[in-house]
Parts: sequence; structure tokens; C-alpha cells
Amino acid sequence: MPKSPGQILKNKSGYKINGSLWIEFKGLRFFGPGPVELLLLIRETGSIRQAAKKMEMSYQKAWAIIKTLNGQSSQPLVIVQSGGKKGGGTELTADALELISYYTQLRKRFESFLQNETKRMGAG
Amino acid sequence: MPKSPGQILKNKSGYKINGSLWIEFKGLRFFGPGPVELLLLIRETGSIRQAAKKMEMSYQKAWAIIKTLNGQSSQPLVIVQSGGKKGGGTELTADALELISYYTQLRKRFESFLQNETKRMGAG
Repeated sequence: MPKSPGQILKNKSGYKINGSLWIEFKGLRFFGPGPVELLLLIRETGSIRQAAKKMEMSYQKAWAIIKTLNGQSSQPLVIVQSGGKKGGGTELTADALELISYYTQLRKRFESFLQNETKRMGAG
Repeated sequence: MPKSPGQILKNKSGYKINGSLWIEFKGLRFFGPGPVELLLLIRETGSIRQAAKKMEMSYQKAWAIIKTLNGQSSQPLVIVQSGGKKGGGTELTADALELISYYTQLRKRFESFLQNETKRMGAG
């Protein structure tokens, strides 16, 4: 009978199986925790510049992420409005909100997997 | 009925849900794909220095990883023998092999989760 990790590891508790999840297109990662955070901050601030600042990310990098996301979608996920009565501002589309909601649900299912594996390990 | 990611994303196929897994102790990641690769290369080469070189990692960093792994285990995972008839060399213990085997099985279960989610997304 092989040893379980709970028998090999020194401490009786405090261990957790954890992980990260993302969507790839042909092997290239384009949607995961980082882009989700960026989109949520754009929704909060109405500005790519401010969202990037809050993530301590360059404006250029934030733009590159948005460009990739828009490029992977049938319709844009982020719409930049310049001028007009509202004086510009950047908005997420309904599709962006759907994709965030999908990711949140996916992460929840992953959490169940992780909790189950942590229990199974026997030192959580 | 909300749109699925398969309806939002532009391409009909080529997408994959992918991810990474590791073991944390009190929030600190100490065992995952990197340490597993390092251990396997130590087994292959019998040398921390050569294993580190193959991973393009500094010897110091490799040592720090080994020290952390040994520190998390009831018994050492890596044994450094100096001198003797065999002229030294570094070996993995049975516990190290068990832990690698556990991680490999865990990753397989994760692959099932990922494949299932990729199918569910509808654009895999």
C-alpha cells in the first residue's frame, strides 16, 4: 500500500491543493484570472487607463489584452466611446459580462474539485 | 438563456480549458510542476547542479526548492551523498517517488476535469 501525501508530509494539517484555470486558443492562453480582473476594473472605473493603474500594469499591456479579447470574440467585449454627451468612457458589452459569469461558475466547479482533492490528500 | 462561451467566442473550435495545480502549506505554494520536474531531473542526472542547469535555473534556487521540500516532509525527499565508494551523487527517496506518483495521478484527474469543461464549453 503506497503512502499518501498526508503520510509523507510533515504537518498533520494546513495543506491545500490549489490551482489556476484559463482558456487557451490553439495553445495560447488568452482568458483567465488576469483578464477577468482587468475587465471587472474597467467596468468599475469606466477607463482602461485607471483599470491598468489599479493592476499596476502598463496602459499598453492592458490595451494588448483587450485587443486580444476583442479579437477572440464574435462581437467586441469592450467598447471605447470617445466624446459625445457622456464625454467618452469605456464599457463592457453583455457578452463580456456573460464570459465573466461563465468563468466565475467554472472557477466554482474547480473549487469543488480542489476541496475534494484536499480532503482526499488527508492533511488539509 | 445566457450565451455559452462557445457562442461568444469567434472560432468554432481550437479552444481548451487548461490550468495548473500545486500543493500549498498555509497559503505558500511548495509542490507543483516545477519541483516535480526538478526532482525527475535529479533522478535522471544524480546531480542537483546538472538538474538545475537543464531547467535553466540557478543552483541556489534549486537548492532552496530542495530545502523547502525536505522541510515539508517527515523524512527527506532528496539525499545528498558525499564521497564513499560511489563517489557521491544525489538520490531521491522512496517518499519522493511516491509524492511524484501522487502528483501524476492528481494531474490525470485534473485532465479529466479539464476535458469535461472543454467539451461543455462547446468550442473545443
